[in-house]
Amino acid sequence: MNPQNGYDIEDMAAGMSAEIAKTITEADIVLFAGVSSDVNAIHMDDEYARTTMFGGRIAHGMLTASLLSSVLGNRLPGPGVVYMSQSLRFRAPVRPGDTVHARVTIKEVNVGKCRVVLDTVCTVGDKVVIDGEAVVMPTSREKREAASK
Amino acid sequence: MNPQNGYDIEDMAAGMSAEIAKTITEADIVLFAGVSSDVNAIHMDDEYARTTMFGGRIAHGMLTASLLSSVLGNRLPGPGVVYMSQSLRFRAPVRPGDTVHARVTIKEVNVGKCRVVLDTVCTVGDKVVIDGEAVVMPTSREKREAASK
Repeated sequence: MNPQNGYDIEDMAAGMSAEIAKTITEADIVLFAGVSSDVNAIHMDDEYARTTMFGGRIAHGMLTASLLSSVLGNRLPGPGVVYMSQSLRFRAPVRPGDTVHARVTIKEVNVGKCRVVLDTVCTVGDKVVIDGEAVVMPTSREKREAASK
Repeated sequence: MNPQNGYDIEDMAAGMSAEIAKTITEADIVLFAGVSSDVNAIHMDDEYARTTMFGGRIAHGMLTASLLSSVLGNRLPGPGVVYMSQSLRFRAPVRPGDTVHARVTIKEVNVGKCRVVLDTVCTVGDKVVIDGEAVVMPTSREKREAASK
């Protein structure tokens, strides 16, 4: 572990996994609209949203995706990690009141390149709402020790 | 255009482009931390952040990425669009006070499958901070007219 309690790449192996869960509330949707400037009616206007294929308002897909960033930055690898890339497939809507579980699972560890590839999945109950893959650059104990010599 | 002033797929062609710009403020970072639950010190703790390769606090990458969702949902294609997928490469940090320009440009229109592929880029000044690709399902005038017969 690094001094901020994040995993060094030397601590990581394929199959390791971490999760956070969060209930997506009305407040989250309103605040996310302000932060992102995304005020699309599908998120803001229930009368309109009821006329669409979704049958009611849904959370911004990127709001749900932001929980993946949270689990990467706070659990695995945790503090010190640098986010390199993320792919996202939006598979199903998330509605106000839904509890999203965001889980990351290590697929590949490349110590030489200091890169880790993780499967990233958000679920509501049994349903996958987002899946995709992240690539991150964790801290390295070896590099830290070399730098302090 | 559809009744919500979004583009139907029949209105769209490769090369069409749209942009939004937003200044990323301290308030955005604090609110995004609450919404995403991502309270990583690199976003919240300037004393710590100054000791890192970034030299100070940076905005959440997904905060910047959320502007891409905004331009897709509010400008091109705009209301009525369904977000299918997004890839993101985080190329450079965004700092409090930076103004991000989020631009989407149509690469491919597939009317048969009702899918549009767009290049998606966020810049601060001349620097690309995020690039990637989105796939969306716009509304279709042809389908709407067929359904109303």
